[in-house]
Amino acid sequence: MTDAAIDFWFDFSSPYAWLAHGEAEALAARHGRRLRWRPFLLIAAMKETGARPLMNTPMKGDYARIDVLRTARRLGLPFAPGEPFPFNALAPGRGFYWLYDQDEALAVGWAKRLLTASYAESLRIDRADAALAATAEWRVEAGIDAEALRAALDSQAMKDRLRAESDAAVAAGVFGSPWFVVDGEPFWGGDKLGELSRWLETGGW
Amino acid sequence: MTDAAIDFWFDFSSPYAWLAHGEAEALAARHGRRLRWRPFLLIAAMKETGARPLMNTPMKGDYARIDVLRTARRLGLPFAPGEPFPFNALAPGRGFYWLYDQDEALAVGWAKRLLTASYAESLRIDRADAALAATAEWRVEAGIDAEALRAALDSQAMKDRLRAESDAAVAAGVFGSPWFVVDGEPFWGGDKLGELSRWLETGGW
Repeated sequence: MTDAAIDFWFDFSSPYAWLAHGEAEALAARHGRRLRWRPFLLIAAMKETGARPLMNTPMKGDYARIDVLRTARRLGLPFAPGEPFPFNALAPGRGFYWLYDQDEALAVGWAKRLLTASYAESLRIDRADAALAATAEWRVEAGIDAEALRAALDSQAMKDRLRAESDAAVAAGVFGSPWFVVDGEPFWGGDKLGELSRWLETGGW
Repeated sequence: MTDAAIDFWFDFSSPYAWLAHGEAEALAARHGRRLRWRPFLLIAAMKETGARPLMNTPMKGDYARIDVLRTARRLGLPFAPGEPFPFNALAPGRGFYWLYDQDEALAVGWAKRLLTASYAESLRIDRADAALAATAEWRVEAGIDAEALRAALDSQAMKDRLRAESDAAVAAGVFGSPWFVVDGEPFWGGDKLGELSRWLETGGW
């Protein structure tokens, strides 16, 4: 056993990422592990797997609508996604990595604020203007320079960075959200958090 | 709460059906519910969802090979599938429904014997000859007439029956294996058995 981070790969447009992020944080804290948030674009993996966005897939979308609401009720979480849904989470991911390179806690704060805006407050977060509006109060409290952030969201460097992180996800075999990797072992989906916890408790099997 | 059955939809070619069937039986017994085994052909749903067989899907197959073995180790179950894999489970399903119409317990015995042959003994079970060979001892003990069973596996009636059951699965929104329905509530996958158990304990939420 090492005390290495638990990688938490997710797409901001994944309802299951919203539903699992709190449980994942609590689990990591319980085991004394860092939770390393790693937003990426699921579309990169879909090109490999041939999958379509879950909610737009016949049959799967119908089940997911039942399961997402059932999971939200179980966890006591709101679930009121904004429009459009699903969305292309470019601005959230680009802003995350710009902040991450300065201060990981700031990046996680940005991610949580955006997930809450998107899934609890029905706000749009996909484009730069929308993401900035949805994080206005948070940015003031966090002391983020609005102009610098806005520039980052449109920068080639952060476009390339989010693409590179998405390519890294695919290279690591990640095709779903949320996705956890602990000590090299992959776990797909919030439904696997119980098994992941047992993995950490026992050292694996 | 009613004491209605828990529907257990599965494809014989699904490793997760093999891994979950014992847990599902124990869960149903614990809650005093009948487990209603309902084999179907997943290929019928794949035409709707656009999915390919799991193990042959890029990325997904790689993850499933890790997850299936990890689940088997956790449950203490063997996992040594025969060739070919995945397979078209025509004979197992046709035989099941022929037996089911006579005696549900016989049909469940046939299903368990075939799952064990396929996943624990690396035997082929897809075609009529293979399914008959893999169940030879069981059939003698169960008192099944071999000639009548062989005729049933090739009969138009049982071909139609398995197709109708697969169509019924799709009509019920079933696109994965194993799949459970309890009191109208669907649960996809062995990973959901814990949640299904809580659903029964609490009466749902």
